Amino acid sequence: MPTDPKRMRELSPGEALRRLGSVPIGRVVFTIGALPAIRPVNHLLVDGDVILRCHEGAALMKVVGQVVAYQADLIDPETHIGWSVIATGKATLVEDRDAIARYESRLRPWVDRDMSYVIRIHPGIVTGYELVDNGDSV
Amino acid sequence: MPTDPKRMRELSPGEALRRLGSVPIGRVVFTIGALPAIRPVNHLLVDGDVILRCHEGAALMKVVGQVVAYQADLIDPETHIGWSVIATGKATLVEDRDAIARYESRLRPWVDRDMSYVIRIHPGIVTGYELVDNGDSV
Repeated sequence: MPTDPKRMRELSPGEALRRLGSVPIGRVVFTIGALPAIRPVNHLLVDGDVILRCHEGAALMKVVGQVVAYQADLIDPETHIGWSVIATGKATLVEDRDAIARYESRLRPWVDRDMSYVIRIHPGIVTGYELVDNGDSV
Repeated sequence: MPTDPKRMRELSPGEALRRLGSVPIGRVVFTIGALPAIRPVNHLLVDGDVILRCHEGAALMKVVGQVVAYQADLIDPETHIGWSVIATGKATLVEDRDAIARYESRLRPWVDRDMSYVIRIHPGIVTGYELVDNGDSV
């Protein structure tokens, strides 16, 4: 059943980050060579930073030192109501042993691989929008 | 409730494309300047090509002529079972009036904007995987 097109309403950076933190999964957007690449992962949001786990040899390890985008969305395929958030910032390897242990206990890998590395994305830019009813349908 | 980590099983390109065509929404991954960018959109799959609609002035219009990645996934946040597919290829503007009319009738915008442009992504590389139970839990 087709539904009416929705209106896009911009989210504040704070509200956008809050929504990002409310879902378990997102996607890291980066480049390999000159080609665009994307990997779905599960994440934690800690003090405004996005925390991921990664295994050695993963394409995702290439993001260390790069500026990447991290995206999450929750859009209902039936009603088309929902939101999308993009946090863009530099990805670094977490090297502090205590921090790694803390994140590892809270962020369980979904895939049966040895996820020995923890990556932190510190967002410099956070944007987001929600798709809402136009109002005239109420 | 934590679930057991899942095994990643590679999908054939044909099976990956079929799954991409089975969902209404995906994400275009590209670059703006040197920065990674991503936009969720709804799509059609026609003869192995990904078809999108776009409005004039959209950041997405920058993909025309670029090699982009198009990604879709369906991963259950509870069970962590699901799949992810990435189709990488060149994006071009569809200029054939008949083709535009045909796609426009089948691909309704979710957002209340004038979506005058139709973009085709012709995938040169299609990869995908599914997350499945390890089997030892059955």
